[in-house]
Amino acid sequence: MDQKRPLILITNDDGYAAKGLRKLVALMRTLGDVVLISTDEVMSAKSHSCSIRERIYVRLVQQEEGFTEYRCNGTPVDGVKLAYQKLCPKCPDLVVSGINHGMNAATTVVYSGTIGAVIEACMNGLNAIGYSLYSLDPDADFDHLDTPILEITKKVLKEGLPKGVCLNVNFPKRSEEPMKGIRVCRQAACRWVEYFNDLVDENGERYYNLDGEFVSDDIMPDTDLWALEHNYISVVPTCFDWTAHNHIEPMREFEKITI
Amino acid sequence: MDQKRPLILITNDDGYAAKGLRKLVALMRTLGDVVLISTDEVMSAKSHSCSIRERIYVRLVQQEEGFTEYRCNGTPVDGVKLAYQKLCPKCPDLVVSGINHGMNAATTVVYSGTIGAVIEACMNGLNAIGYSLYSLDPDADFDHLDTPILEITKKVLKEGLPKGVCLNVNFPKRSEEPMKGIRVCRQAACRWVEYFNDLVDENGERYYNLDGEFVSDDIMPDTDLWALEHNYISVVPTCFDWTAHNHIEPMREFEKITI
Repeated sequence: MDQKRPLILITNDDGYAAKGLRKLVALMRTLGDVVLISTDEVMSAKSHSCSIRERIYVRLVQQEEGFTEYRCNGTPVDGVKLAYQKLCPKCPDLVVSGINHGMNAATTVVYSGTIGAVIEACMNGLNAIGYSLYSLDPDADFDHLDTPILEITKKVLKEGLPKGVCLNVNFPKRSEEPMKGIRVCRQAACRWVEYFNDLVDENGERYYNLDGEFVSDDIMPDTDLWALEHNYISVVPTCFDWTAHNHIEPMREFEKITI
Repeated sequence: MDQKRPLILITNDDGYAAKGLRKLVALMRTLGDVVLISTDEVMSAKSHSCSIRERIYVRLVQQEEGFTEYRCNGTPVDGVKLAYQKLCPKCPDLVVSGINHGMNAATTVVYSGTIGAVIEACMNGLNAIGYSLYSLDPDADFDHLDTPILEITKKVLKEGLPKGVCLNVNFPKRSEEPMKGIRVCRQAACRWVEYFNDLVDENGERYYNLDGEFVSDDIMPDTDLWALEHNYISVVPTCFDWTAHNHIEPMREFEKITI
């Protein structure tokens, strides 16, 4: 390992074989030494789940100059915890997660294993970025992301991020028009509205299957969703302090309750 | 079902048999009709994980006047989604999760299945409260929580919560001194620092086991952790907007990047 090159830890939630992950590895290897920890299974919607009871098995899959690849049976959050504490040859300069097949804008961050890994890294004081593409196609075209991913990553490697803040970056899918630029924005309040398919299995037992549609009911120009839908890249500074700070004072009424 | 009584949906992440869950059911039944959806397995640290690929099986376990109990093979978030959309006789007036065996203060909210369920309810526009006790003892004493849980719940049932805000309520464990009161506070920035036990299984294969200790390095008097450690009940207004709003303007520099 070259001690002078930055060390970049990569993970994702689409599993080790995802095209977006391999693209991210290729890009990051031009910027530094890379340790990759991916998961055996697809971990979409596993959020910040971690294995406090399960055994975590890790395999070294590949090792060559400037690149080491591990795979584990845990979640993306497990992967980050384990890699930066046990597997990396030094503390990573940056943790990058993705490129996710599917956007992680608006409230989808709450469910995302990709963003779970980013927040985990941020909680541990590491610089961290999540990259996601607004397309669920497993064979999606990622080539329009090369320059923005490299430039955003270089800026973070050079300048770092404020304490307690990570970046959630989403890209519009490739269209005939070139992307318009980058917008720093807030997470839209839009959300999935679910419906459940009521089905019967091979043994005649009823079960449910989660399905749903994304309802874009908060598309103000300062949101990530507006940016994506207008062919901009969205960058949301994201934090793990979930306190609704402006509600603390109004809620002091609860302090009057006799217990 | 009595149409005039409030409908309270209950879940937790410690599994259907947990003492804290049963205590919460008993308390809530004095305030309204109750639908309980619990999980087959313990779901601690499953965060906001939900089942987008797996089949969700639900069983009706018990039904009597004012109380219906379901159990499912999913996560607490699955349980909330399913219960309020498919199982409840009307839209719940309130969703309550807990009483968790173990505190969900500071950054432990990020991992918590109990709080995952609360945030899910909040995202769907429902009033929601998470209750947790600062003790991991499966046989913990919950009796000192009767009055505060009933009073906090009654206030929320009567007045509702602001849009996009739920409550994360933590209780100190029972001590010889009575609790001092309620503090409305912010989530402390303290976190788990993990270490991994490096072990060998019955087949001679190496595996890791996650372990760690909670580091109290942010115990300012305005935090939930300070409140708990000084024998107060902590109430944190919690939101699912994870934007670091005060970092949007300083980060507009990213908009200058040429893509």
